[in-house]
This record gives sequence, C-alpha cells and structure tokens, in this order.
Amino acid sequence: MNNNKKLVEAITSMDVDFAQWYTDIVKKAELIEYSSVKGAVILRPYGYALWENIQGYLDKKFKETGHENVYMPMLIPESLLQKEKDHVEGFAPEVAWVTHGGSEPLTERLCIRPTSETLFCEHFANIVQSYNDLPKKYNQWCSVIRWEKTTRPFLRTSEFLWQEGHTIHETAEEAQEETIKMLNVYADMFRDFLAIPVVKGRKTDKEKFAGAEATYTIEALMHDGKALQSGTSHNFGKGFAEAFGIRYTGKDGKLSHVHQTSWGLSTRVIGAIIMVHGDDSGLILPPRVAPTQLMIIPVAQHKEGVLEKAEELRGKLSGVCRVKVDASDKKPGWKFSEYEMKGVPLRLEVGPKDIENNQVVLVRRDTREKMIVSMDELETRIPALLDEIHDALYEKAVKRQEEMTTTVTTPEEMRDAADNKPGFIKAMWCKELACEEKIKEVYGLSSRCMPFEQEKVADTCVCCGKETDTMVYWGKAY
Amino acid sequence: MNNNKKLVEAITSMDVDFAQWYTDIVKKAELIEYSSVKGAVILRPYGYALWENIQGYLDKKFKETGHENVYMPMLIPESLLQKEKDHVEGFAPEVAWVTHGGSEPLTERLCIRPTSETLFCEHFANIVQSYNDLPKKYNQWCSVIRWEKTTRPFLRTSEFLWQEGHTIHETAEEAQEETIKMLNVYADMFRDFLAIPVVKGRKTDKEKFAGAEATYTIEALMHDGKALQSGTSHNFGKGFAEAFGIRYTGKDGKLSHVHQTSWGLSTRVIGAIIMVHGDDSGLILPPRVAPTQLMIIPVAQHKEGVLEKAEELRGKLSGVCRVKVDASDKKPGWKFSEYEMKGVPLRLEVGPKDIENNQVVLVRRDTREKMIVSMDELETRIPALLDEIHDALYEKAVKRQEEMTTTVTTPEEMRDAADNKPGFIKAMWCKELACEEKIKEVYGLSSRCMPFEQEKVADTCVCCGKETDTMVYWGKAY
Repeated sequence: MNNNKKLVEAITSMDVDFAQWYTDIVKKAELIEYSSVKGAVILRPYGYALWENIQGYLDKKFKETGHENVYMPMLIPESLLQKEKDHVEGFAPEVAWVTHGGSEPLTERLCIRPTSETLFCEHFANIVQSYNDLPKKYNQWCSVIRWEKTTRPFLRTSEFLWQEGHTIHETAEEAQEETIKMLNVYADMFRDFLAIPVVKGRKTDKEKFAGAEATYTIEALMHDGKALQSGTSHNFGKGFAEAFGIRYTGKDGKLSHVHQTSWGLSTRVIGAIIMVHGDDSGLILPPRVAPTQLMIIPVAQHKEGVLEKAEELRGKLSGVCRVKVDASDKKPGWKFSEYEMKGVPLRLEVGPKDIENNQVVLVRRDTREKMIVSMDELETRIPALLDEIHDALYEKAVKRQEEMTTTVTTPEEMRDAADNKPGFIKAMWCKELACEEKIKEVYGLSSRCMPFEQEKVADTCVCCGKETDTMVYWGKAY
Repeated sequence: MNNNKKLVEAITSMDVDFAQWYTDIVKKAELIEYSSVKGAVILRPYGYALWENIQGYLDKKFKETGHENVYMPMLIPESLLQKEKDHVEGFAPEVAWVTHGGSEPLTERLCIRPTSETLFCEHFANIVQSYNDLPKKYNQWCSVIRWEKTTRPFLRTSEFLWQEGHTIHETAEEAQEETIKMLNVYADMFRDFLAIPVVKGRKTDKEKFAGAEATYTIEALMHDGKALQSGTSHNFGKGFAEAFGIRYTGKDGKLSHVHQTSWGLSTRVIGAIIMVHGDDSGLILPPRVAPTQLMIIPVAQHKEGVLEKAEELRGKLSGVCRVKVDASDKKPGWKFSEYEMKGVPLRLEVGPKDIENNQVVLVRRDTREKMIVSMDELETRIPALLDEIHDALYEKAVKRQEEMTTTVTTPEEMRDAADNKPGFIKAMWCKELACEEKIKEVYGLSSRCMPFEQEKVADTCVCCGKETDTMVYWGKAY
C-alpha cells in the first residue's frame, strides 16, 4: 500500500516548478534512487531498462557501421592524462584521484577516467604499424566520473554511463566522414527511436571538446525551453596522434600520423526523454524505447476467467510487443495511475463484460484516447498504434520546437527573446569570441551550435553588427 | 606483414612452460594488450567479443529467472564499506582509495567498488517496506577493482569485468533456493556454452566470501592440473540485513530481516576457456561462444569467381552460423595459422577446383580433420559440425578431468598426489580448520569445495584420522 500511496500523490505541475516536476518524476517513476554517494545515483530496474534499450539500438548501429567493442582500464596514470595539453587542462579540474591501493600510497596518482582518449591513443600507438592496420574503429560502453559540484539525475551526475567511440584513419577525409556519420547515427536514433527532433551542427571553438579540432553536436529542446546537448562527435585531426605518436607507414613507405575521431552519448538522453515527452501525470515513453509497451490490467480480476484471459492475451501479444500483466491485488485505479506515472504507451483493460463481447479497452498514454477493440484485431492494431504514438509524439515535439524557436536580428530583439521567449534563438554571429562571450554575459545565452542547415536571417552579427554568413542557435542550456 | 610474422612465430609449447604458453596466446590471439596501467589490461575486440557472448548468454538466463538489471555507483564511502565487519576485513586491504575530487581533498575517502554488497544493502533498506516488496532480484554488469600485487590476464587483474547478482527474500528457504539455482545457471553455462565440466560444491568456512553464511562454487580443472574457481554463489542469511537494517513488515504485521544472496562471475572464465581447450597452435574456442564460428578462406583468390563464391557462401551461411571471409592479400597459409591461433572452430577453403566440383574443404580446429563437403550440404552440415565440435571438446575435457583426479586416503598418498599427480585430489576431511590449514601448509593444497556429489572414499580424515562423512576436492589453484 505504501508504494501505491506514493505513486498517486500528485506530482508537482511542470508549470509551477519544472525542476521539481522533473525530480518528482525520476523518483516516482522509479527510474533512480539516491544513495549515500554524493552526486551519483542508482539506476533502478525501470531506469536501467531504458538505457539497455538505447544500448541495444546503438550497439547494433555501431556494429553495422563496422565498429568493434573493446574495454580499456578505468584508471589513467597522471602522466598519461597530461600528454595532450588542451585535454588535461579541460579535464584535470574535474577528475577523481586514486592515491592509495589498499594501505599503500601509490607512486603515481591515477585518475578515474573522465573520458578515455588518452588510453585509446596509447593503445593505438602500440598496435598500429602500417596502413594495413587502418582504420581502427572502436567503441566502449562504460561508466566515467567527472567531479561535479551541483548534480541532477541523468543531466549532470558525478558518475554516468555512456559509450565512447574512438577511431583512427589514414586520411582527413575519412576522419571527417566518420565524425559526421556517427553524429547522424545519434540524430537518427533521436528521431526514429526516441521521437525527439534535434538541431545538428558544429560547436563554436569556445564550446568544443578539450583537444578537438572540431566538435559536432545534436541539441534538443526541453519542455521548459532549455537546450540539452545530447550527443557529440569530435574530429581530432592529428592533435592527439602527434602528442601520443600514433604513426603508420603508408603505401608510399613514409611515416604519417593518423587522423582521429571520438564520439559519445550518455544516460543524459534519458533526461531528454523525460523533459521532451512527459506531462503532469508523469513519464510518457516513446514506444520503441519503452521497457513495457503494453500493460494489461484485469478488471474485476476475482471473477472467473478474467486473469486467465489476461494471461492468454499476454501470451498472444508477446510476439508483437513488449507486454506485461499486472495481476497484483491493487485496485485497477491505482494501477492506471502507476502506469501513467511510468509512461507505458498503451494500457489494455479487460473485464468480464469485455470477455463476453470479445473485446478490450485500449487507452493511449499520450492522448488518453480510449478505444474499444475486438480481441481478434489486437495483433495488428497494437503494433500500428505503437507506431502512431511514436509519430504523434515526434510531431508534437517538432511543433513545440518550431513554436519555441525565435529569430532575432537586433540586440533589442535578443534581449526580449532571452527574457520572455524560452527556447532556441536563431541569430547571426561574426565568429568572434568577444561577441560570443558578450552574448553569454549580457543575455545569459550560450551558443548551442552553428547548424548544418544555415539560414541567412540577417546580414550582420546580432552583437557587433559586422557582416557575416554564420547563423547560430543560442539558448539557455542544461 | 608485421602482424602476420608475429602470428606465425611459434608460441611456447604448453609442456615446456605453461605460464608462458598462456601469456603467448592471450597476446597473439589478440585477446588483450597491456597498457601503462599496472595490473589492468585492455580487452581487445576479439577478447571483448568473447565476454559479450558470455554476457548475452547469462543476461538471457538471468531475465528468464526473473532478475532485473540495475546500476549502482562505483564509489563506496569508507563508512558504508565498514558497516559489515567481516566484509570490510576481507576487502579493505585490496581496495583503491579516492581521496581527491579535482583539486580538493574529500572529507571522506571513497573506495572503488571491489564488489557492491554494501551499496545494494543500503538501497534495499531504502526501498523495502513490506512483504509485497519482496523478493527483489537484481543483477549488475560492471567493472570492479581489487588491488592485486601479482596479476595475470583474465585470471587475476586489478580491474576486471563481471556481473554481480544481489537478491533479498522473505524466507531462508527461498534464499537457499536462489543461491543454488544461480550456481546451476553458471554450471549449465560451463557445460552447454563453454564445453567445460565443473565440480559443484560448497566452500569451507575458511574459503567462503567475506560476510557470507555459505559460499558455493564451480571449480574447473585447467590443462596444467590447477583448479580455477570459476563462479560463486553466496547465501548471506540475515548477516548483512542486520548490519544494514533491511527489514520488512510481514503478512503477520511483524518486522523481520530479509534473507539475502549474491553471486558473481567474471572475465576470469575466458582464462578457463583458454586453459581447458587450447593447444600448442593457440586457442580452441568452443563453437557457441566463438565470435566467428566459420572462417572462409578463398584459395587462389585472384582467379575469376573465387572471391565472389566466397562472398556468396558467406551470405548463404550467415543464417546458420557466425561467418566471415578473409579476403585480405595475405597468403592462405598465413591465414590458416592466424585462425588456428584465434581458435576459430571451422575453416572453409574454397578455390577454383572446388567451385568446379561444387564442393569445399572444411577443416576442424579441434581435430584438424579435413572434409570435402558438397556446397549443397553446407547449411545442414555446418550447424551439425559445430554441435559435434562442442560435444567433442566437452567429452575431451571430461575425460581429462577424470584422468587428472586422484583419490587419496592416507597422508602418504596425499604427499605423492600433491607432488606427482597434477589435478584434483579427493580426500576425506574432518571439517576442522586445523586440518585444512595443515594440508595447505604441508602439501600446498587448498580445499576447492565439498562437492554436492559426495563419495565416501574413506571413513576418516586424511589428515588427523578422525571419523568423518565429508569428502573434499583439494588442489593447487589459480
């Protein structure tokens, strides 16, 4: 009873306090639990199942595109971390340092990986000799630690799960192709699997990864108008290769440095799912990532034949969707609330009268639409409905993003948008760091990316008035 | 050419130097690579693929038996580790301590998990209130660190990948049932997936897990006669529950502590695969765990139609096995050696004459048997052959284990067996620690387990002569 009571307590409305609404959901939908470890959270079965589904989708795509999984040590010697100057500057302030093994002090400090470029580089330098050894296209699923002062579940935690791809290539063209290809794998997953539209583009130099030549990003817009950087792909050029000596003998017999990329996506995407699709009743999960797509709830389940029919339907439908029956002794109303909170895309109600009429009640989580459906049609209707829900969620998110994107051409308009129009702001930029910093300081807006789909919304930089061709998405960000 | 040369250099013969043979294989079959991180190794694609297959097998079994995956933080506060007395004594000497986050010293040291009982206990105490919340049956896939002085790839490394199951139950009977069920899942995997026989049994109190009431184990016998503890399952009784306050309100309204289990299996099993099946030409992989089950090697591949036919066969056979074509410009002989080293179960050779005769040459890795097989029969013949190879490897390992198991009834016989007969030693034991310690000291033998299948090989303890019913497997162990 305790659990039920907690579940049906209303959560904070997102209009009243978006941050509290978010915290309520992650706890009450049982995605995470806090522990005594500061800044880290426990991924509970329902939260972890989301990550497993994301892993399943991506791992398949990575393998289809010729990548192999490996596993690197989690500890990095301080001297190795320091080999690439920009990289160590970027990460050293936020790593956890291991200083003792058992009761003995270590001769050299080791940091827990905040990311694994240095380890991959050392390994590549060891195993690559000739052009025959190229390309190497590796990926790793692991946890990393970045010591954060203020944390929020999924969005910013000291420890998080992610994948990091690391590849090396003969030519600059191949490396650039790989960088963009993997960004597209992320963007496609957001559209096809998570029903979330993204803006694809390149980060400014100020916002790029420590040690990268160029960083590309997918940026998604949350319900509250803030942007979430949701996946990044970096072209390192030869920077790391030169620092770590990753060289190969080419077909011409000459020694050259490799061209390198890395790309990563983390459990942060679960935060995006929550903040793009959720509502005041809880999570709304896009069907393809949902651990349970259809929840069968027997009505008057003590009556003869009801539980048996529910179980029979589960068996029949398990071939076309991920389905469960809740046969616990909670009241149907409690169960409805629980699976609304957990965002299960479809609910199926079946009671004595339904059985008599050879029908069931289907209820969509996203629209709450109720449908009476013949039992004979379920195996075709349910997969079709799941696709409809996916499409509807995507369309809704696209529409919201369009409505929450403001184009500005003058400082006054930018002021107004920053203060009164939550969402993306499109504005021209001269590519000077000074203007980017001023926009950050004056309006509280960071550059999200220079989108691939450029539009010349004006001829001049919104900040300094200098002529430019570059349009940038600006926003407040998580 | 460099890589080829390395591959066909003969490896050390296992009769000459078993440890060096092992090290040669793990490197030359490209399972691992060393890094600058002491005691940790890099799992290369071929080594990691073995782990992925083991994960795939086990994760399915875990889910079929009602377990859910979760993820706990990797860092444990010192005060939390200390809550269960035996547990902290067992693990504190071998943990890595994090003392600084960024540039700031921490107010409390955190250790990198050597195992996660303490975190699961804290979590269970937070989320369990009533009997309705029981059982909880969780599993976690992660990496752990245990600071080891001397390390060997897969067998003993400072960091390793594993799974750890953690469950809590209402009754002692349920907990005991779970403990044995999961031990059997491990044993079944060894037999059905890895083609390795094991001895199942209970550990002595001296050898049990720090904090457990009883530890059960599967012990496998390596080629050199040493035992490898390959998976363990623990019944904790109420020990941890009392230390961490994991209580629930029963149907009777009374508060009780839960009964608890944990069970784990690590990348160590890859060491078992190598040391049970391998030979002086390299790895021999049991087909069901092999990343590639069939390697197609085109002969005279420059001749018209050969590569096309190889590719056509790959396409056709990819429905019945994991198959690859090596179309690189290395000589076929180099390729034969390479895939022998890598232990690919079946090799398929196809050249112009074969094509003319509508046939191919199949070569088994385990027996080196060559077979001429009609192309029309491949789709039925290959899966059958893979099963035959699995069975043959298992039978061979069973036979070796039988031959390398010695029964002793007197101290003299034990002396002789310990010195001259590598393998398991069966002998009676009085269950006194003093005798167990003496056997360790005098003969260098540790108790591997009290097997479930007891045989009364004598009436009295091999050490002190006291009457007893308990038979123990003894051995030298990794």
